[in-house]
Amino acid sequence: MEKTKVAIVGLGTVGSGVASLLLDHGDRTARHAGRTLWLEKAVVRDLSKARDCNLPEGVLTDQLNDVLSDPEIKVVAQLMGGLEPARGVMLQLLEAGKDVVTANKALLAEHGPELFDRARALGRSIAFDAAVAGGIPIITNMSQCLSANQIGSIQGILNGTSNFIVCQMDELGWSYDAAVAEAQRLGYAEADPAMDVDGSDAAQKLAILSHLAFGARIRWNDIPKTGIDTLELTDLNFAKELGYRIKLISHAELGAEGLELSVAPTLIRMGRPLAEVRANYNAINVVGDAVGDLFFHGQGAGQMPTASAVVADMIDTAVGRTPITFRTLELWSERESAVKIRPVDELPGRYYMRFQVVDRPGVMAKITSILGAQQLSISSIIQHEPDQREGGESVQLVIMTHEAPEGAAKAAVDQIMQLPVVSGKSVRMRVME
Amino acid sequence: MEKTKVAIVGLGTVGSGVASLLLDHGDRTARHAGRTLWLEKAVVRDLSKARDCNLPEGVLTDQLNDVLSDPEIKVVAQLMGGLEPARGVMLQLLEAGKDVVTANKALLAEHGPELFDRARALGRSIAFDAAVAGGIPIITNMSQCLSANQIGSIQGILNGTSNFIVCQMDELGWSYDAAVAEAQRLGYAEADPAMDVDGSDAAQKLAILSHLAFGARIRWNDIPKTGIDTLELTDLNFAKELGYRIKLISHAELGAEGLELSVAPTLIRMGRPLAEVRANYNAINVVGDAVGDLFFHGQGAGQMPTASAVVADMIDTAVGRTPITFRTLELWSERESAVKIRPVDELPGRYYMRFQVVDRPGVMAKITSILGAQQLSISSIIQHEPDQREGGESVQLVIMTHEAPEGAAKAAVDQIMQLPVVSGKSVRMRVME
Ligand SMILES: NC(=O)c1ccc[n+]([C@@H]2O[C@H](COP(=O)([O-])OP(=O)(O)OC[C@H]3O[C@@H](n4cnc5c(N)ncnc54)[C@H](OP(=O)(O)O)[C@@H]3O)[C@@H](O)[C@H]2O)c1
Ligand SMILES: NC(=O)c1ccc[n+]([C@@H]2O[C@H](COP(=O)([O-])OP(=O)(O)OC[C@H]3O[C@@H](n4cnc5c(N)ncnc54)[C@H](OP(=O)(O)O)[C@@H]3O)[C@@H](O)[C@H]2O)c1
Repeated sequence: MEKTKVAIVGLGTVGSGVASLLLDHGDRTARHAGRTLWLEKAVVRDLSKARDCNLPEGVLTDQLNDVLSDPEIKVVAQLMGGLEPARGVMLQLLEAGKDVVTANKALLAEHGPELFDRARALGRSIAFDAAVAGGIPIITNMSQCLSANQIGSIQGILNGTSNFIVCQMDELGWSYDAAVAEAQRLGYAEADPAMDVDGSDAAQKLAILSHLAFGARIRWNDIPKTGIDTLELTDLNFAKELGYRIKLISHAELGAEGLELSVAPTLIRMGRPLAEVRANYNAINVVGDAVGDLFFHGQGAGQMPTASAVVADMIDTAVGRTPITFRTLELWSERESAVKIRPVDELPGRYYMRFQVVDRPGVMAKITSILGAQQLSISSIIQHEPDQREGGESVQLVIMTHEAPEGAAKAAVDQIMQLPVVSGKSVRMRVME
Repeated sequence: MEKTKVAIVGLGTVGSGVASLLLDHGDRTARHAGRTLWLEKAVVRDLSKARDCNLPEGVLTDQLNDVLSDPEIKVVAQLMGGLEPARGVMLQLLEAGKDVVTANKALLAEHGPELFDRARALGRSIAFDAAVAGGIPIITNMSQCLSANQIGSIQGILNGTSNFIVCQMDELGWSYDAAVAEAQRLGYAEADPAMDVDGSDAAQKLAILSHLAFGARIRWNDIPKTGIDTLELTDLNFAKELGYRIKLISHAELGAEGLELSVAPTLIRMGRPLAEVRANYNAINVVGDAVGDLFFHGQGAGQMPTASAVVADMIDTAVGRTPITFRTLELWSERESAVKIRPVDELPGRYYMRFQVVDRPGVMAKITSILGAQQLSISSIIQHEPDQREGGESVQLVIMTHEAPEGAAKAAVDQIMQLPVVSGKSVRMRVME
């Protein structure tokens, strides 16, 4: 049977999983690829560190050059995190004639144009299905299976750590801090989970998906984003009372007036598939004009689900499918047009608003007249009895609006916050049916 | 831009949709495939029939030979239904050097080995993503994206017509016959819906998926199957009372003792994704040992969702991905082993049973002692007050069991049916958590 020599750079969580699949389950690649993927080298920084897989003698090395200088190694999985030296290593691999597979979304979101241009110029390919939604093969589905469609919208839960934290709060009533600590204990969140909980990671993934879906060049940090790091239990509870759950939703939608992009905690009606995504799962709903809506749900991270995607990419690369896709799609190329992301203020939506108000006659009239002046009509209101333990003076007022432009909603909230009867902070979130 | 000439044979529901995508949206194939798919010919039986798409002059023909004899036509979508002449046409196309795309699951389930062997011998390929679950790209996902996995199980709702009928009954309380008529009116069910409602169509699709998942040669009519054509409203209602819905589930599971395969109405706990699949949608849950569980939900049939899958296959074929997959996977080849399907009697499961019993002291004791003798323990029982309008003599008794081998459940039902206090027919269905 034919044999393709491969290598791994970076043998952490994902890298060890990939090594295990290649070493312990060679029969699968043989059956599915008609060839053996032979793990020739695994490059690490620290040779003495214990590894989560059994490497045969001679495979482990701390010399990237062992890979670069071996012309028989055709496919390399680059599984280091971060931007540098990952970027430099990626370029060196391409220059050395390797086709590269990676799971590093931060790197692609930041340096995609440079890396893809370089790969194209050198006649090489980059595969990255593991970079978005881990085990869910969304990249292959978007770049290959949905080719006959104009994609209209993408809605996804793309950050498993955030979803886990929100679920712990929602289902068990935990505080945000306790939920973060639990996510760290279980290995879902990094020691510094900032990029996960502030929406950056989700925005990077949404930018990559939007390249595929809309052929549009998008800079991830141009995507308006709000994370879950400011989410309060109070709002999860009010949402539940109204029949909704709150999820960190990445949303892209192509309309006549341009591309709408956002990452934000959003209320979704219970029972809708995205509302029922639990724990650290990811899910994506794609709408195409031919296929209609297509929903994917699976493990968005973790050692083996991510390794599953990396090894599938290595097989696709070794047998020659990825090079074709890479050539024909021309991602991050001149062919892509820079699109204008619609200003957030223009976007229509329904809103959930929460205010802390003094419990006194006439307050509601003041608030509703501000909403009316902004053409915001109210679909429901919740105000509970004041809590006597808290002095019984102020109460939480929750308002759900009908559809209105974000700008109007924002202006209304700003004006309401100026009222002397309103104190503390206000909350405003979008609502999806 | 490069141009690949293509043709369509059969311009019915799916064929017209494919023609529309190719003719009206050439820009998409250009963007996603880096080339134009040029519709050169569309072959029909009856030239005078009105068609659902605007074909340019000279494209429509009733001569298959116009396609066979044009060496520039490389890719042909064969979209006739039925076994003959579809099989003959397919062989002629392959002999003439065409790569073929098809949506015809009946043809593949019946003549897969012959067609695939012939294509291999001729160095040609067959793509068939539209043949299973319409717009859900399950074939590409199984044969490409999940290559690093040993698939453990597949559970799917693979027949949209059956699901639609069951939903009408379950949600609106319609009779089976009224629901079938509505499905026909909406174009979901054929004039003769026998293959849909008796489980044959689902079994054909399950056989195709099992080839991909288990590398095993399976004859579709060896799969034990029960359709929805005997389903009664009473059982849908009892299931609801117990917290379950009933769905036509296609199930394949690889265990130490062999492969378990079945198509049958099955109780699934409400809230589980498969239980919530509505209308004529399809859904599939795949469990792989690396990826974990992966769930797909989308339009399983219909003109444009199916055309979406066909055109994606045509692009994959034109750019060269399909030929690679076809070569490396060797479906329906010598490499596939014939697996033994586990005898149904051996399979463990939980059961829902319904009997019509005379409302008299001691009846319950008789029934439960038969269950006990078969080692079947009871997890719940429903027996309502007798309906006085029906004479008040006999009542419906519903029993849910804990896990037991199917053989024991079957034997118990047979014995219970012998009791003089039991009349009418009995119902037994599997329960999934
Ligand atoms: N973990 C997941 O669930 C997941 C899911 C999807 C995508 N990803 C992405 O996959 C990538 C890897 O993630 P991970 O979780 O596997 O990270 P990790 O556990 O931190 O592993 C990173 C590996 O890179 C190696 N490395 C770092 N700098 C190096 C250098 N200069 N030379 C050689 N090796 C170097 C480290 O070597 P030492 O071991 O010697 O320190 C380590 O083995 C990241 O981009 C991440 O965003 C991860
Ligand atoms: N409809 C769906 O939603 C769907 C979904 C998935 C898969 N499929 C599969 O796709 C295939 C096509 O389905 P469909 O719904 O499009 O069927 P359809 O509407 O009945 O169309 C069949 C077409 O085949 C043509 N045809 C039949 N015999 C022919 C012959 N001897 N020579 C040339 N043309 C011939 C018919 O020509 P005339 O028009 O001249 O009679 C007709 O255009 C079937 O295998 C079906 O199982 C369908």
